[in-house]
Amino acid sequence: MVVTSTSNATIRAVRRLHRPRGRRESGRTLLEGPNGVEAARRHAARVRDVLCLTDDAIGLGFADDIGRTPVVVTEEVLAAASDTVHPRGPLLVIDTPSYQTLRSAPTTVLVDVSDPGNVGTIVRTAAAFGWDVAVAGATADVWSPKVLRSSAANALGVHISALSNVTADVAHAGLEPVALVVDGGVPVATVEADAPPALLVGSEAHGLPSNVIDAASHRATIPMRSGVESLNAAVAAAVAMYEVGARGCNGPAA
Amino acid sequence: MVVTSTSNATIRAVRRLHRPRGRRESGRTLLEGPNGVEAARRHAARVRDVLCLTDDAIGLGFADDIGRTPVVVTEEVLAAASDTVHPRGPLLVIDTPSYQTLRSAPTTVLVDVSDPGNVGTIVRTAAAFGWDVAVAGATADVWSPKVLRSSAANALGVHISALSNVTADVAHAGLEPVALVVDGGVPVATVEADAPPALLVGSEAHGLPSNVIDAASHRATIPMRSGVESLNAAVAAAVAMYEVGARGCNGPAA
Repeated sequence: MVVTSTSNATIRAVRRLHRPRGRRESGRTLLEGPNGVEAARRHAARVRDVLCLTDDAIGLGFADDIGRTPVVVTEEVLAAASDTVHPRGPLLVIDTPSYQTLRSAPTTVLVDVSDPGNVGTIVRTAAAFGWDVAVAGATADVWSPKVLRSSAANALGVHISALSNVTADVAHAGLEPVALVVDGGVPVATVEADAPPALLVGSEAHGLPSNVIDAASHRATIPMRSGVESLNAAVAAAVAMYEVGARGCNGPAA
Repeated sequence: MVVTSTSNATIRAVRRLHRPRGRRESGRTLLEGPNGVEAARRHAARVRDVLCLTDDAIGLGFADDIGRTPVVVTEEVLAAASDTVHPRGPLLVIDTPSYQTLRSAPTTVLVDVSDPGNVGTIVRTAAAFGWDVAVAGATADVWSPKVLRSSAANALGVHISALSNVTADVAHAGLEPVALVVDGGVPVATVEADAPPALLVGSEAHGLPSNVIDAASHRATIPMRSGVESLNAAVAAAVAMYEVGARGCNGPAA
């Protein structure tokens, strides 16, 4: 049976997962696409539903593998359920992963990074470079479908923590706080941390809160041609992770 | 007078600029937001129209400065004209900039990079790091409103060329071709170019064409934790620009 109506109960439940309240109340979120399936397999995600088109071999095969009856839908219903214009699916309803305890390992700490695309791209970069991620303040929900999509589903493979007090939590975990600032810091290539770094990345519009900068051991800046240009937040975080990682702090480029 | 209808002739002309054909036929494109105004000022863009809301001091002030009557519009009309959900404006209709001749300077060459957000982010990074950009193949139109928006209007300040034959054009300009590949290349930190580098970046899905890789002097890879993860194309290009620039090739991080 193919679901053709967006007022179907399952579809309505899926659509609620695009809202914070819907995710909070259900404890679930959405993973999309073939890389979502791959991540669900690799990280043994708890999958509740598999929505897919009639000819989606990946979605149908995955549902079969995990012993679930797939929810087969029309293109129109899939688009409504996924909140994107031309999704190819499948769409997996999964239990929202839990945050983990901050540990003594290189960690990118996002403070008020509000753009879901930037947060997802930073998580993807952290996965590739072997960094942990921590989120604080008004940072976009790392388990939202948009962030998961931008991370290419890599969030499931990254050690992700949520902090209530950045400075205290970082100190307690034995990390060395490195504040990434647009100007006025030392060149990022010259940062020498004695402990695993907590790379502090602030909001796209306002940067880091001044109390967080004041409490950091280092202020680091990515050298740019002039003061006029700026880098996208995800690009700045990536260059800093790459470079600080290469300075002998357990990063992948050492 | 405030324009309240999207069927107004000016608004219809503006909306056509979101399509390749509309830009081609008019020779115009759109710059958005306060950073669009700043870029138009700095780079003396030829501005044909300024669309803004009634209370947009930046837009009204800019129109006054350049001696144009602003086209004042409602929020609904601005959203229709800009093709985004919550634009704050202003929206500038400008003459599309011209491509420039490829020159002997560090250049990121985009081959079939189709995502407008990635192309814009790469242009923004190039502006910050002092690199030129060249586009080839099915790369997204660098002068489209979407790419200009992702570049934070930095495209106007970057030397941008269009190539018809990547390998021949790069050789003719005296650049040393460095192919950025997902795996199998030397670590990007070890690339030593004798001439200004042409950093070749391929499509998100398929990478670079094999003939372009075969003709390159170097194949470079960004070290990653495992073969499973990958980097966003704009992130990979940024790390490579930063690192190759730092290796003594006239980059900003030297």
